[in-house]
Amino acid sequence: MSRLDAQMAFLAEAEKLRTILRATPIGDASRQENSGEHSWHIALYALILAEHAPEGVQIDRVIRMLLIHDIVEIDAGDVPIYAQTAEGQAETEAEELRAAKRIFGLLPEDQAGELMALWQEFEAAETPDAIFAKSLDRFQPPNLNLASGGGSWKTYNVDFATLDQRVGRPVRRGAPALWDWIAPKIRAFLGD
Amino acid sequence: MSRLDAQMAFLAEAEKLRTILRATPIGDASRQENSGEHSWHIALYALILAEHAPEGVQIDRVIRMLLIHDIVEIDAGDVPIYAQTAEGQAETEAEELRAAKRIFGLLPEDQAGELMALWQEFEAAETPDAIFAKSLDRFQPPNLNLASGGGSWKTYNVDFATLDQRVGRPVRRGAPALWDWIAPKIRAFLGD
Repeated sequence: MSRLDAQMAFLAEAEKLRTILRATPIGDASRQENSGEHSWHIALYALILAEHAPEGVQIDRVIRMLLIHDIVEIDAGDVPIYAQTAEGQAETEAEELRAAKRIFGLLPEDQAGELMALWQEFEAAETPDAIFAKSLDRFQPPNLNLASGGGSWKTYNVDFATLDQRVGRPVRRGAPALWDWIAPKIRAFLGD
Repeated sequence: MSRLDAQMAFLAEAEKLRTILRATPIGDASRQENSGEHSWHIALYALILAEHAPEGVQIDRVIRMLLIHDIVEIDAGDVPIYAQTAEGQAETEAEELRAAKRIFGLLPEDQAGELMALWQEFEAAETPDAIFAKSLDRFQPPNLNLASGGGSWKTYNVDFATLDQRVGRPVRRGAPALWDWIAPKIRAFLGD
């Protein structure tokens, strides 16, 4: 098997990410968003919103991170943010790690190692690039929920305090200007 | 209106790209691919297949190009490659230019100019980055058609000579190794 065979096997497997549906609807509310198109949309967020990133963030690394951040969901599924529980957390993390090893493991060894490291950096959310990437991943869904008339907030009966904890905190951490922009809109919508 | 207001208006508009359906089915043949998830998948192609690019290609620029290359389809629609005609070409190009002006024009002026230039570079396919980006845009659909049992080749009753002209030529131009890899598989499938 050549390097290219291995790379194409990975790309064929990765393609399945678009069969994973998220809790958030697309903007016109006609259907749920899938994780492949979500990855595209937030990579575009990174490109367009680069000037709101903290100093030192390398946007092209953030874009690379966002392109691969959800690939583990092919095996592990998407756990909607409002369905996450402290008890479920460890199990989800173990499942995602197994998925990362299997899926990135389809690549030639050097690339598998690089992408695994990039994914783990995203998950750990400790470097400036990963912190900003995480904030975009949290910032995009409220925009879709506002556009679609409630979306996953309705499904999970979300109040502002819960949203502030699960979404506001990570968005503020990596991109305070984005939180300042959307928070009043969310408050107005949720009536807080 | 602030810069961020303009940027968010653009991102909300761009999101509609996933309502544009392409002629190619996704790998499991369950439905047509949409242009948003297609953009994600080929940006991932660029990341993974970087080593097969001609020398001098800047992969992060290629990724940026691929993230925005189809946004004009929100207004102009997708014209499947096997449905393109010499007569229709000028009209499609004019429609796409109008679309680019309207959609990129939602952004702050400096960003609108940058993205317009990046999109025009892709369309012109004269720089190394654009030539490689175009070759990936042409290389991904045959992979999906092979995975899904024929896909758009069946829809348009495509023979190898037509495919070689519309797909083989641009793939060879920017990424000969990728064409060498897939051509025998296509020949075997189409019976040429």
